[in-house]
Amino acid sequence: MQIAMIGLGRMGANMVRRLMKAGHECVVYNRSPAAVDALVKEGATGSTSIKELVSKLKAPRAVWMMVPAGAVDATIQELQQSLEAGDIVIDGGNSYYVDDLRRSKAVGDAKLKWADVGTSGGVFGLERGYCLMIGGEKETVQYLDPIFKALAPGRGTVDRTPGRENATETTTAEEGYLHCGPAGAGHFVKMVHNGIEYGIMAAYAEGLNILKHANVGNTQETFDAETAPMREPDHYKYDMPVPEIAEVWRRGSVVSSWLLDLTAAALVESPELKDFSGRVSDSGEGRWTTIAAIDEGVPADVLSAALFARFTSQSNAVYANKLLSAMRFQFGGHKEKTS
Amino acid sequence: MQIAMIGLGRMGANMVRRLMKAGHECVVYNRSPAAVDALVKEGATGSTSIKELVSKLKAPRAVWMMVPAGAVDATIQELQQSLEAGDIVIDGGNSYYVDDLRRSKAVGDAKLKWADVGTSGGVFGLERGYCLMIGGEKETVQYLDPIFKALAPGRGTVDRTPGRENATETTTAEEGYLHCGPAGAGHFVKMVHNGIEYGIMAAYAEGLNILKHANVGNTQETFDAETAPMREPDHYKYDMPVPEIAEVWRRGSVVSSWLLDLTAAALVESPELKDFSGRVSDSGEGRWTTIAAIDEGVPADVLSAALFARFTSQSNAVYANKLLSAMRFQFGGHKEKTS
Amino acid sequence: MQIAMIGLGRMGANMVRRLMKAGHECVVYNRSPAAVDALVKEGATGSTSIKELVSKLKAPRAVWMMVPAGAVDATIQELQQSLEAGDIVIDGGNSYYVDDLRRSKAVGDAKLKWADVGTSGGVFGLERGYCLMIGGEKETVQYLDPIFKALAPGRGTVDRTPGRENATETTTAEEGYLHCGPAGAGHFVKMVHNGIEYGIMAAYAEGLNILKHANVGNTQETFDAETAPMREPDHYKYDMPVPEIAEVWRRGSVVSSWLLDLTAAALVESPELKDFSGRVSDSGEGRWTTIAAIDEGVPADVLSAALFARFTSQSNAVYANKLLSAMRFQFGGHKEKTS
Amino acid sequence: MQIAMIGLGRMGANMVRRLMKAGHECVVYNRSPAAVDALVKEGATGSTSIKELVSKLKAPRAVWMMVPAGAVDATIQELQQSLEAGDIVIDGGNSYYVDDLRRSKAVGDAKLKWADVGTSGGVFGLERGYCLMIGGEKETVQYLDPIFKALAPGRGTVDRTPGRENATETTTAEEGYLHCGPAGAGHFVKMVHNGIEYGIMAAYAEGLNILKHANVGNTQETFDAETAPMREPDHYKYDMPVPEIAEVWRRGSVVSSWLLDLTAAALVESPELKDFSGRVSDSGEGRWTTIAAIDEGVPADVLSAALFARFTSQSNAVYANKLLSAMRFQFGGHKEKTS
Repeated sequence: MQIAMIGLGRMGANMVRRLMKAGHECVVYNRSPAAVDALVKEGATGSTSIKELVSKLKAPRAVWMMVPAGAVDATIQELQQSLEAGDIVIDGGNSYYVDDLRRSKAVGDAKLKWADVGTSGGVFGLERGYCLMIGGEKETVQYLDPIFKALAPGRGTVDRTPGRENATETTTAEEGYLHCGPAGAGHFVKMVHNGIEYGIMAAYAEGLNILKHANVGNTQETFDAETAPMREPDHYKYDMPVPEIAEVWRRGSVVSSWLLDLTAAALVESPELKDFSGRVSDSGEGRWTTIAAIDEGVPADVLSAALFARFTSQSNAVYANKLLSAMRFQFGGHKEKTS
Repeated sequence: MQIAMIGLGRMGANMVRRLMKAGHECVVYNRSPAAVDALVKEGATGSTSIKELVSKLKAPRAVWMMVPAGAVDATIQELQQSLEAGDIVIDGGNSYYVDDLRRSKAVGDAKLKWADVGTSGGVFGLERGYCLMIGGEKETVQYLDPIFKALAPGRGTVDRTPGRENATETTTAEEGYLHCGPAGAGHFVKMVHNGIEYGIMAAYAEGLNILKHANVGNTQETFDAETAPMREPDHYKYDMPVPEIAEVWRRGSVVSSWLLDLTAAALVESPELKDFSGRVSDSGEGRWTTIAAIDEGVPADVLSAALFARFTSQSNAVYANKLLSAMRFQFGGHKEKTS
Repeated sequence: MQIAMIGLGRMGANMVRRLMKAGHECVVYNRSPAAVDALVKEGATGSTSIKELVSKLKAPRAVWMMVPAGAVDATIQELQQSLEAGDIVIDGGNSYYVDDLRRSKAVGDAKLKWADVGTSGGVFGLERGYCLMIGGEKETVQYLDPIFKALAPGRGTVDRTPGRENATETTTAEEGYLHCGPAGAGHFVKMVHNGIEYGIMAAYAEGLNILKHANVGNTQETFDAETAPMREPDHYKYDMPVPEIAEVWRRGSVVSSWLLDLTAAALVESPELKDFSGRVSDSGEGRWTTIAAIDEGVPADVLSAALFARFTSQSNAVYANKLLSAMRFQFGGHKEKTS
Repeated sequence: MQIAMIGLGRMGANMVRRLMKAGHECVVYNRSPAAVDALVKEGATGSTSIKELVSKLKAPRAVWMMVPAGAVDATIQELQQSLEAGDIVIDGGNSYYVDDLRRSKAVGDAKLKWADVGTSGGVFGLERGYCLMIGGEKETVQYLDPIFKALAPGRGTVDRTPGRENATETTTAEEGYLHCGPAGAGHFVKMVHNGIEYGIMAAYAEGLNILKHANVGNTQETFDAETAPMREPDHYKYDMPVPEIAEVWRRGSVVSSWLLDLTAAALVESPELKDFSGRVSDSGEGRWTTIAAIDEGVPADVLSAALFARFTSQSNAVYANKLLSAMRFQFGGHKEKTS
């Protein structure tokens, strides 16, 4: 079927490629024309404006936006000037589901249809397919089914979940895409997905860090009042082969996962991770997940700890730590260690 | 080669089966003879005592213990009465690596060799193979290589880590077993492995719990001084299909993992997890991992939060929570909500 | 000076009493007239409607609202119908500072003045005075200074902070009230105050809970695969006198505080805290504090952990814990412990 | 009564002063003689060796050790050569209660008596008195009562806990010292005391850090893929007067405490805490408290988070954070932000 794509960054462009490979007809637009030209060479229909893009579509038009979060509202506004009743606006970016609620209502008031699609897969999606979490009305989502099917990984070589073979009705979940609920549900599920991702990443990072420091018993002990002495240095004299440990866990262990695969790959490239300094960025989803937990009144100890560790890595706890040192100095005369 | 196995519980018995399938000769012993008989029927050599077991082995003897943590010291003591210089004692159970340090020294004083093997794979190990993390002297570990190779999963269908193809020297990590370091190193790595496992499990559990409660905006709001009112109930009106969401993440998403596979399977069996009440046990490794982090002076926010959530699920925070309610009553006259 | 009070619950009524004791003239209104009558008997001027209340005030009128968060907007709306340019609306309740931003703007558009006052002190405020955190324009706050001074504790017997004696300009902070910044600043500071309160309460609760369980080495050990055995039961055979410990820390220790005083009092009343079951409520401020931390990108590990412990005490982690048990059953065949 | 003090550092010397002020006779020893000389001038009896110190005491001798944790065993060994049956060895330092269990047994085998005393009060103890948490046999503790009474703060100006006035039997807890249980109980309670101290300190530090960053909405927003954009910068445009806020909370608020007093003092000295960089040391007690919680199986989310924040401030999470950045680069091509 025909689909339009606005926003041809790494994600958007690769999605177009995957769609064309599956036989779909793609009309594309991007603010900078070079990205359009590249895809035109690969078979897409190009356009130099959103208006032109819309003009090249047959009703009901389906327009997939893959633009930065800050550009979504402007793109929708421009689309509303050209689209007609029954056309579909799809937000496949990393929007906050709360914005979906507002936007889907505005779009609906203009008789347009809405779908929000949380997309996971990163730079591997072109080849592996994209895991899609979809929000919107049932009819809209069903209409777009061929698009979702093409983008999704499909069953592939992943073993079927025991019990699924007896299910009387099948769902698309096994194909790697899922209609999660009404408008916003797609980005809500993607938000939580990323929150979980933060937690899993932190679990590996903390554990491997413990292994990395398993040789602290070998280091020259500092004897001063500001350092807690090790009671059992002999328990911590291991030089652990961290890259090999990450590798061995990939097969047969309970902690095998795709994130572990990536960790093992990073450690092969550089066992000491020399390209990184340890300043870890965070994007909106990790924050929103904890906020959702708080709004719902459910605990998120692990997910929030993973988030806060990133904040701390960004040097945002310095004032708090200065306060702790200042209190210690006040009550005990403790000076800060300088080394 | 020939190997002895003491302890024929689920793990020990299945390991014997996997070893025999690979052509190894297994001499087995178990406190209750039924387990011995069963394996004898499958081709193992049985014995009715540790002494007899040892007598059936050719030097250098290799004896693998797969017994409860509380029975290891007694088993070693009994073995020392029969084994001879150069024989090998292997602890494949869930021992604390700190005990390995003591035991390997005692065993070494008796001229015996030592290996400790952390084993992951659970009930799936017979078929998938066991991920093995090994501690001990290099010569001992190399001597046992055929045994480890047979128990381990091998490369299987898991994609090779990019960069490994150019490695000048290969390691057994890609086969699913690894010599991690001297005595204790195997159980140390297994300990941290389980600590990570707690963290990953908690990440999924917290995230799916947030999805499960995404409909709190639909519940009749209680208006009382002891309940924080929802500011935006309209943001939380989703009835999320949690079992389908776990399934869809299995393909193409960043959070795919073996633990997610198991979660998806559990949710197919019972979407409401009706066989469980939420009292989560913990075993030693999760505790020891956090203690190791503390001894090393490295943070373990996520791993400890996962551990403490289990303690709380075991009702061990009740007194602390009573104190909180009592303080609230003292300063604000707040009564506890009863429902 | 003259001041009006709307909302004569425990907090509002006691504030009127403290104001009258300081010689201020109070005009009061409450939805249910009994509370009005009671204060009229003590010297206040009563009123049966907001309109009447306003009619009894001299310009510039100052109206202090002490009403539930859910009633603030309606009260302001009604006030706007009677008040005149230059009159002052004061929100002394537990409002979200984000609402202050909106309300102060609306009030300002109607040429009224705004102040928001976070109030700490609870049921002890009548006697000890209320700690006041104030937001609003400088002129407004200065105009109300006599009111704030009367409500605040004053210097009292609290030792002066070293270094303050040399300050060239004094602030009202030493009197127990403070102009924190523009509209919203008062409730922002109060919000964080309560967030800190949660953290301190949790610190005591966790610590005393550790003391309470210092006798676990005496309990009959359960030997089963689902219970981690204690390595050193002899280290945990103390029957700690928790109420006495809370008392002894009140004098000379680093952890002495008002919350400790209250804890000691609660433990005298009932060492086992028999009136409480351990379901701990939370109000908005604790939630908003963590959300503010997330918005700012600063870590709040302790404050959020304190918040989440309350959520868990409200049984909101049950589904998460069921998932953990279900995963354990999947990979290890572990059954839940029932006792 | 007569008492000996070994170790005349800041704590030991001031305790001698406080004891002499109360009329007790102090025999003192210190490795470096200058500290002995100073106290001799103030009225103490000096000695140049432990042997000489013991020789100057009348039986039953009471010897209080106030030496670094690493020197306790050697001091006890030396004492055992001079002391006689019935003499008392007191460890008033920051020892691990687990060592008390071992040492009290060894001392008891030599027919000596044992007391362990956890001491809080820091540099203020000379004037305010020391809060004492005591472990040992009842008779020993009672014999030393005059010493404890002299060191402790006494009731002072602290309000009596409501309910205590009706108690049929009084305890010394109101005087600021307490016999907590058998050997080790004193240091166990002190350990938890310090664990709580970490938690309270962190609660203030996190809260004040949130206030400090309440102006992030004013900072020039960076628009890049590695920075989560602020949704509501207008909510974070407060320049909070942090030193004044700490001060205002000291009177009438729920979070008033001695640690807050110290915080307020530090902020008067330097509002930006310019003498500190934010590297926060930790001593043994904070670590041991969390280990005790783990051994007991009770949650310590807040206390451990406070501990781990210190570890992170000591740069011990860098490798973990590098791993997170490396994973992000692997799956999303995210580069680390350099500024």
